[in-house]
Parts: sequence; C-alpha cells; structure tokens
Amino acid sequence: MVTPERTGAPVRVGLRWRDLDHQGHVYHGTLLTLLDEARTAWLRDVVGVRSADSYVVARIEVDYLAEILVEHAAIDVSFEVARIGRRSITTGETVRTPGGLHVAQASVVLVMWDRQGRSSRELTPGERERARERLAAPEEVAADA
Amino acid sequence: MVTPERTGAPVRVGLRWRDLDHQGHVYHGTLLTLLDEARTAWLRDVVGVRSADSYVVARIEVDYLAEILVEHAAIDVSFEVARIGRRSITTGETVRTPGGLHVAQASVVLVMWDRQGRSSRELTPGERERARERLAAPEEVAADA
Amino acid sequence: MVTPERTGAPVRVGLRWRDLDHQGHVYHGTLLTLLDEARTAWLRDVVGVRSADSYVVARIEVDYLAEILVEHAAIDVSFEVARIGRRSITTGETVRTPGGLHVAQASVVLVMWDRQGRSSRELTPGERERARERLAAPEEVAADA
Amino acid sequence: MVTPERTGAPVRVGLRWRDLDHQGHVYHGTLLTLLDEARTAWLRDVVGVRSADSYVVARIEVDYLAEILVEHAAIDVSFEVARIGRRSITTGETVRTPGGLHVAQASVVLVMWDRQGRSSRELTPGERERARERLAAPEEVAADA
Repeated sequence: MVTPERTGAPVRVGLRWRDLDHQGHVYHGTLLTLLDEARTAWLRDVVGVRSADSYVVARIEVDYLAEILVEHAAIDVSFEVARIGRRSITTGETVRTPGGLHVAQASVVLVMWDRQGRSSRELTPGERERARERLAAPEEVAADA
Repeated sequence: MVTPERTGAPVRVGLRWRDLDHQGHVYHGTLLTLLDEARTAWLRDVVGVRSADSYVVARIEVDYLAEILVEHAAIDVSFEVARIGRRSITTGETVRTPGGLHVAQASVVLVMWDRQGRSSRELTPGERERARERLAAPEEVAADA
Repeated sequence: MVTPERTGAPVRVGLRWRDLDHQGHVYHGTLLTLLDEARTAWLRDVVGVRSADSYVVARIEVDYLAEILVEHAAIDVSFEVARIGRRSITTGETVRTPGGLHVAQASVVLVMWDRQGRSSRELTPGERERARERLAAPEEVAADA
Repeated sequence: MVTPERTGAPVRVGLRWRDLDHQGHVYHGTLLTLLDEARTAWLRDVVGVRSADSYVVARIEVDYLAEILVEHAAIDVSFEVARIGRRSITTGETVRTPGGLHVAQASVVLVMWDRQGRSSRELTPGERERARERLAAPEEVAADA
C-alpha cells in the first residue's frame, strides 16, 4: 500500500526478498505485481478510481532495461496517460530505482470493470476529467474503446 | 514442471488456487509465471536450451483476451519462433484453455544469458538450428541482436 | 489443479521454477501454497468439502526436513485426519519427493468457513462422516471446537 | 525492504493487493513472506545477521487469529528470542495491525546457513551475544542444536 506524496510524483513500492528469483534479480513476472501496486495508488489518488477491483488489465507491454536488485530496496514508478477511450485508459509507466536508474518501461491498457456485473463499464465523468489532465498528448482521447 | 508430449504440441500447465486474485480469475502478473513455466519446457525440449537460468526476458507483450478461471484447471501454451537474433529469440505464444478457448496471446523477447558472467551470450549453433526449424516466417533471422 | 487417483493415495503437485527462491530451493512460504493445492483436492475428493472457499487455515505447523529442488519436479502429499472438532479438522500432512524422500511434515487446523457470512460453520454430517474414516486415531473426535 | 526505527521496535511491512487471495484477506501462505521480510530486517539490524541468505527456516508454527485485510495497509511484527542453540535461533513473532489488533502469532526455528557449502553453520560469537540480549527467558541457551 503506497501513496504518492503529491499528484504527479512517482509512486514508491518497496521490494521484498521474495521478489527475487533464482537468478538474484526481481522476477520479470513479479514486476507486474509491483507496477500494479503503484498503479492502483496512482489511479486512486490521481484519477479517482475507487478500488483495485474497478479495472482489469487488457494488454501490457514491458521493456526490461536493467536488473532490479534487492539492494535497490524500492522502485519509483511514474505514470502518464497515453490514451483515453470510452471504457479504457492506456498508461505509460516509467520505472526507476531510487537512485534514478531507468530499469523498465511499460504501457498498459486498463479496461474499467464492473465487478458486480463481471463486465466492462464506461469511465465515469470524474475519472475521464482527471485522466485528461494527465494526458501526455492531449489529442489522444478516443470515442471508440 | 511440464513436458510437451511431442515437439510442436502445446505445453500444458496446471493452475493453482493461489493463481487467482481477489477478482476470482488468474492474476494478470501470474500469467507470466505460467508462460515462463511452459516456455522453459519448450525451450529445453524443442530448442535445446539447457536450463531456466540460460535466458532472461527482455521484453514482453501480452493481450489478455478472456478470464482464466480455476475451473479451467490448466492452460495449453503453443509456441512459435517469430524472430532469431544473434543473442535473442522472439517467440509467439498462444494460450488456450483445455477446451480450446483462446484466452491470451503473448510475444516475448528472450536474451540468452551467461549466468556466471551476468551478461548476454550468443545462441549456440544447436540452439540456432533448432529455433530456425520453428520459425513462423523463415526470413526473420537477423544478424544484429 | 490435482486429483488423487484414488482415495487415500498421495496427491501430486508439480513444481514451478518460480517456486524457487534465491537460494535455489522451494521457498518455505511457497510450500504452504503447494500443501494448500494438494489439501483442497484431498478435501474435495476424500472428505467432500465443496470448494477451496469452504475453509480457512487457523493454525499451521511445518517441519522442513530437506531442501525441495526443482529437479524433484513434483511433491507427493499424503493426508490423515488427526482430530475432528465441531467446526474444525486437524490434518497430518506428509510431503515426499516422487523418489520417496521425506522432505516436510505439517499439521494444519482447518476451520470450516461460511464465505457468505464471513464466519465459521459446523462440519456437515457428510464431511464429518468421511473425515472420521480418515482418522489416524479414532478417539480424536471432539465436541468442542 | 523495511527498517526497524530502533532496536526492539516492531518492523512494519506494507501490504500489497496481490497478497490477498480470492477470499479477500491476506493468503495464509503469503503471511510467511511478510514475516520473512520483517525477520530479515530484524536479524540484520538487531542480531547482526548479514544477509537473507545466511539462514534457513527449519520449523514454523503460525496461529492465524484474525483476517488481515488490505485496508489494514501494513502489519507490525515484533520479535523476541525464545531459544538459542549452537546452530539455531528460535523466535517468537507477534503480528499486529497498525491499529494494534493482534492478528497472528508465530514461532520460527532458524538454522544458520553457509550458502557456499550448502550446510548449517554455528552462530558467530557476535550473533550469539546480540541474540542473548533479546532472550525472553534468559535460561533458554542450549548447547546442543
């Protein structure tokens, strides 16, 4: 559970020893858990998405640029909005060590989710408005998806 | 630990209850663990890569097409080689339930790894030869990476 | 997802590479995931407990007797019932490698759970009857817990 | 990665959404990961054990007293030494929510480990001295194990 100190600041997530695999670096699959943790805090505090159950991951792209080691102790994740659809947000996610080393870059398509109905839902007007303020390139607001 | 029954067959990986998240489907990050398990068996049995420590994941793209539920009991992963570089293989990975439902599609860039030296290494001639037999489009053999 | 081939037989659970920790053996916490997977199959097939959501773990004791290595490929877990309470079952769980090496021994207190009401529930008559057939020492049927 | 603010203080470990299972509380196996994280920090800062690879878990007992929910955000783990052997330390581990709710109690036998030699080792004089200062009942120093 992490909290961005202010809007726009990176979200810090502490590492655990069990995040390491046999090769001694953070397991590539576990990075998704760390990104998820940071993203949920960012979505809640910046975009106003109420809970981790309010969206599902539809697509993920990750470039692993350098080993993340337990000595790094934590990662800092910065978010921007690359695209807003009717039912989805696409994020750009930059992962650095506390020392500033760029260790991974991700792009994630989030589909807003109605847990009760087990189906996708439209962004609320509030979510859409706040996501728009975080757009990297303002024209990327689509009506379709 | 899984074994493809014959070269080219999908690799089956059994699900565990703990693969589920709070939403009741396989957690999106955990799918990477399942793919990894299947891929390691495929690389060993089909491409001749000796151990799971012999490569690292440099890039991953995953499209999550449908929920994977514990009732599915297992997933079947089929592999093809999309591209061969000097030090890397790019795979295409198709994930289906045992009933044939297409639940995810992935593309993964694997960089061959020298664990001792903690650096990338070239494919061995044997790895290259066997990977070439699995190429989806034979021209995708690059000299550069 | 595993199935005991016949009542009383050990339940086999395959290992995954990610079950290993940095020390190269199955992580001690992950053994609980493996036991859980085997126990859920045993409870379903032998005791008639309907789903993994039908009980919670109230207490666990584990003796780690030898390293479990990825080369072992799987573990075999044998179950007996050590004690039956009104709302709980205590199991004895013996973990061996497929080659027969005794690698861990556990005792687990399971409290039957009503997921809807988020509270404990009594064993059903059917669960109680079938658990009784698996008692290691038949007098260990208590009325209290 | 956590640090006890001062010797004797509980060690706080933040929760992650993925620590939850399908039932909506921290998975019982995952509590061992959280305890491990806290214990490694305590062993390093209080007992002077150099790294997480310097010991293995030989036995664990855990009583799960109440559900740990993601709303709790973190757990606080307090440690005492219950017994010191030649090659082992037995801890008492008390888990509370930040609000003070006692949610779990554990006892863990740690065997000091020589990773190079893959075998147990004796406590160093420094480790023994510092562990002795944390003994709950000072007579529990054994020569045997």
